[in-house]
Amino acid sequence: MFRTLLESYVGKIDVFFENLPWDEETMGQSMRYSLIGGGKRIRPVLALAAAQAVGGKAEQVLPAACALELIHTYSLIHDDLPAMDNDDYRRGRLANHKVFGEGKAILAGDGLLTYAFELLASPLPVPSERQLRVLKEVAQAAGPEGMVRGQVLDLEAEGKTLSLEEIEQIHRLKTGAMLIVSARLGGILGGGTEEQIRALTRYAQSLGLAFQIKDDILDLEGDSETLGKPAQSDLKQEKSTYPSLLGLAGAKEQLAVKVQEAHEALSIFSKPVDFLHSLADYIADRKH
Amino acid sequence: MFRTLLESYVGKIDVFFENLPWDEETMGQSMRYSLIGGGKRIRPVLALAAAQAVGGKAEQVLPAACALELIHTYSLIHDDLPAMDNDDYRRGRLANHKVFGEGKAILAGDGLLTYAFELLASPLPVPSERQLRVLKEVAQAAGPEGMVRGQVLDLEAEGKTLSLEEIEQIHRLKTGAMLIVSARLGGILGGGTEEQIRALTRYAQSLGLAFQIKDDILDLEGDSETLGKPAQSDLKQEKSTYPSLLGLAGAKEQLAVKVQEAHEALSIFSKPVDFLHSLADYIADRKH
Repeated sequence: MFRTLLESYVGKIDVFFENLPWDEETMGQSMRYSLIGGGKRIRPVLALAAAQAVGGKAEQVLPAACALELIHTYSLIHDDLPAMDNDDYRRGRLANHKVFGEGKAILAGDGLLTYAFELLASPLPVPSERQLRVLKEVAQAAGPEGMVRGQVLDLEAEGKTLSLEEIEQIHRLKTGAMLIVSARLGGILGGGTEEQIRALTRYAQSLGLAFQIKDDILDLEGDSETLGKPAQSDLKQEKSTYPSLLGLAGAKEQLAVKVQEAHEALSIFSKPVDFLHSLADYIADRKH
Repeated sequence: MFRTLLESYVGKIDVFFENLPWDEETMGQSMRYSLIGGGKRIRPVLALAAAQAVGGKAEQVLPAACALELIHTYSLIHDDLPAMDNDDYRRGRLANHKVFGEGKAILAGDGLLTYAFELLASPLPVPSERQLRVLKEVAQAAGPEGMVRGQVLDLEAEGKTLSLEEIEQIHRLKTGAMLIVSARLGGILGGGTEEQIRALTRYAQSLGLAFQIKDDILDLEGDSETLGKPAQSDLKQEKSTYPSLLGLAGAKEQLAVKVQEAHEALSIFSKPVDFLHSLADYIADRKH
């Protein structure tokens, strides 16, 4: 049931991406290269599921939900650049700049980010006030007080030993803010009550930390082929991670705590939100 | 009169920038470095003047107008990077990446672009529908079918001889689209009629080309100190320019034609729009 619904969400998202009206020659090729063919689509899936949890329709929020994946993809392209993390591979394929060159990779990221806001501002069957609220929240989550700030802190942290608080701050900014706003986007555009939107926020907060802890564990335990990127890269780059600070057993324990918190946050929903429950388990159990 | 009004607009814009609530440590420093202390502020000035031309108030559109300058600044930071135009100086000072390093310069650009959309989505005393219309138009003008596409074409054009049509296409995308949307932003948010918005569009279209022709002429005739950047850089980079294609006299003639067209586009306004007329002359007569 969860798998079927997940595949149906991902199917809708991928069809939307394939139909984006980007030219083939100039920008479209490099933007498509990084956007299509890979990725778990967690952010748009979370947005679609959150919209349905509050009684909205997936179709109603699909373009806005997909905009979140464009923002995520732009951040990966810029993050992989030599001046940043200097990663040659992403999702099992060459990084964007290894295929198109650094200049065009920077521009592909810029293009994806800007187009995301075009999607968020395009007419949707919801009141304009809700759309503006979501636009502002997404910009805040992605911007210099959110994801971009997380990237800067991450850049500054390389080679340093961080405390658990510092690590959590980076994750909160770098991945947490966008996951939270994904759930909120679905809740707000879907017409949820403020109580429902708050519950979705708490849910996504725990989900985001669970996601990151699992990422750190996979980097340590996984093999490069399954991961689609080099394993043990955190060790090589001397990054502070949950396992490096809490030990592997401690990290796994924290993961279970966060998943439990995610489940509890959903208790206010009177109708079943099975998908969101399963999504939390899925994130903790995934192999890549 | 024109100078006084221009200084008053620029003053409002600069005060707005100085009061942006950016942290000093992480991102704020590098974003401020490129945003503050330099620049003609043409885009927000155009937006404020357009709003007043249709009977709106400057205060009403100030944050949205300032967002245009953030987008312009982000594009300069990314454009100056080694992987792009590789310029060490901008506005008479070291380029952002020469001060903060490439990684942080990319992120400063990303932060400015994202924050621009936060400003555009923040509550303004205008109907939400108008704001969404402007948001979408700005994203289109800045995005992969607008400014970013122009940057890609510009990157691909280096070392090639272009036709006048190809040059004009690059300018239309790289600078024209944002200048047009600046005027439209003022017209739309200020509550202009569709006829007024169309006239502002034609005005900004001619103004944009005049601006670019003048830029090419200045690059050839100006000295580095007055320009705040190396003169004759187009020649060195073998860029096709208006003077290289039309000759210097031909380029100056085209400049006069475009300024005349800008004046004519304003004829539909029944109340005086002296500032916009003077702005067209100012752009043609400027020394840097």
